[in-house]
Amino acid sequence: MDLHILDHRLRVTSISKTGLEHYTHPLIKLIFLRNRTRCKFFSLTETPENYTVVLDEEGFKELQPSEHLLVEGSIWLPLNVVSNGNASSSSQAVGVTKIAKSVIAPLAEQHVSVFMLSTYQTDFILVREKDLSVVVETLEEEFNIFREEGGESVPVQSQDTWKGLQRNGREVMQVTVHPVLIPENQFCVMSLDPDTLPAIATTLIDVLFYSNSPGEGASVNQDLECIKFFSFTLIDGYVSLVMDTEAQRQFPADLLFTSSSGELWRMVRIGGQPLGFDECGIVAQISQPLADSDISAYYISTFSFDHALVPEEDIVSVTEMLQAQRKDVPH
Amino acid sequence: MDLHILDHRLRVTSISKTGLEHYTHPLIKLIFLRNRTRCKFFSLTETPENYTVVLDEEGFKELQPSEHLLVEGSIWLPLNVVSNGNASSSSQAVGVTKIAKSVIAPLAEQHVSVFMLSTYQTDFILVREKDLSVVVETLEEEFNIFREEGGESVPVQSQDTWKGLQRNGREVMQVTVHPVLIPENQFCVMSLDPDTLPAIATTLIDVLFYSNSPGEGASVNQDLECIKFFSFTLIDGYVSLVMDTEAQRQFPADLLFTSSSGELWRMVRIGGQPLGFDECGIVAQISQPLADSDISAYYISTFSFDHALVPEEDIVSVTEMLQAQRKDVPH
Repeated sequence: MDLHILDHRLRVTSISKTGLEHYTHPLIKLIFLRNRTRCKFFSLTETPENYTVVLDEEGFKELQPSEHLLVEGSIWLPLNVVSNGNASSSSQAVGVTKIAKSVIAPLAEQHVSVFMLSTYQTDFILVREKDLSVVVETLEEEFNIFREEGGESVPVQSQDTWKGLQRNGREVMQVTVHPVLIPENQFCVMSLDPDTLPAIATTLIDVLFYSNSPGEGASVNQDLECIKFFSFTLIDGYVSLVMDTEAQRQFPADLLFTSSSGELWRMVRIGGQPLGFDECGIVAQISQPLADSDISAYYISTFSFDHALVPEEDIVSVTEMLQAQRKDVPH
Repeated sequence: MDLHILDHRLRVTSISKTGLEHYTHPLIKLIFLRNRTRCKFFSLTETPENYTVVLDEEGFKELQPSEHLLVEGSIWLPLNVVSNGNASSSSQAVGVTKIAKSVIAPLAEQHVSVFMLSTYQTDFILVREKDLSVVVETLEEEFNIFREEGGESVPVQSQDTWKGLQRNGREVMQVTVHPVLIPENQFCVMSLDPDTLPAIATTLIDVLFYSNSPGEGASVNQDLECIKFFSFTLIDGYVSLVMDTEAQRQFPADLLFTSSSGELWRMVRIGGQPLGFDECGIVAQISQPLADSDISAYYISTFSFDHALVPEEDIVSVTEMLQAQRKDVPH
């Protein structure tokens, strides 16, 4: 299989709930006005806590610094696994499950933090630019690694100078098992023809920028049954949307499409306290048992928490699996 | 004829060119999300100097005070002339020309300032609430006057207590003839089905919020040939748009409609210096000679200047008329 290091240098940011309206102007530009921006990688995810915005440097320029904007200090690079024709995987599962053993587990073992961003089209594994040498060294046995540069794919191999330099993380991982929350909403993972984006503009603007009644942000603590979660990504011209069925009803049914099976997904939210960006192995903790059971999963990291989406019919077994995991680990 | 005092209490405001993006959130709500606001009277006009926003008190609540927002101190009430079937006017002219002699001239004589807002559908004559008694007294000979209140039209007559109280303006008017500018652009006055507003949302957002390259605001002084002028109004559910043919080309041709004759209009911009709100007779100065010649005209006041739109084929005679007017008045 091939692993591509994509030609985007990304920032991971967070906009506060009350601060979003101050960023309406740049965000609408980034979402709808492709001719006015050179941003090629844009992701906006609303959670009860805040809005996580992941975007390339061209997009990041649009966000004026303010008290409402938090910026993670690193440059992140998106990795993308491409199954070429002769991939021998017999798994029918999609999403992070496919890459759990080949990418996520090895990176966790090397103490490389990852920020996952699943979309309708593919799964992006974001790693810090400074970890790139360790990433290449770790994954080059399993993958042909290419670096995308100006539209070309250039083969990458670990350099001798990298060897041993940073490969210092082979001690036993400190395992923290984070509490999980399993809200009641059902989610859809959808896409649409980017040319029809204007047709859903007012609905999308309404949902993204105007659907929070004042003070609603705090309501997740009182009402854990359903969670506010909405994700929009526009990456290299492809649109992906993750929303619950309640939000979906606001959109015209004929423009958004999902996979032919029309699956619904349930969410496992990871983390009782904000996770931060330095802990490793969080994705692995969830994706490993899912891979063992061949259960598909999307995985979306945000500024504060991680979110796995699993098929509705698997949520009971996933819940049991996670409960068993908690028991296995000494506190 | 009937004159209706409409049930809207309006504020006249101005947003600076550089400040517009800070008002993207409330303005998009007022333009596109009718379900989220109780604002029923909204008008936004871009000129080279600023954005003039006229809106009712429900809409005004959405605009947070800031250094970018100027607010005229008065409450303004919109008047609307309704030609009932038996109106004997033989004029084919439309717009302010129809009301030049019956409304605009008498109010000017009484030193009542008016703020004109022509739309595709009708012409609104805004007067200050404090001038209402004078307005009623001045116009009641010519009109049946009604006040709209909660959907009903209530007949209004001048009260004895008003008589003589404020009718103190019969001295000779001090006439200032303001310089005019006649830019080269051709304008269209258009409407669209409000239900199709979402279909032009991204284009309208692009034109309104993103079409100013930095520093462009000053360019009117260097390049007087074409003027930046774009007006959007959403009043009682009716949409009206005034834009030049260059802006028009950005919109889908099948959604916007204009009168069957598809006329193009030329602009006469009144005022070399910002006009302010207290001078009377500015509209009358333009509309009187147009009415004498039975030339149609739309008229749009903004925070700094006034703008008359006359049919393209009449622009030469209008220009000559205005030149003659300048010569008639001693400097």
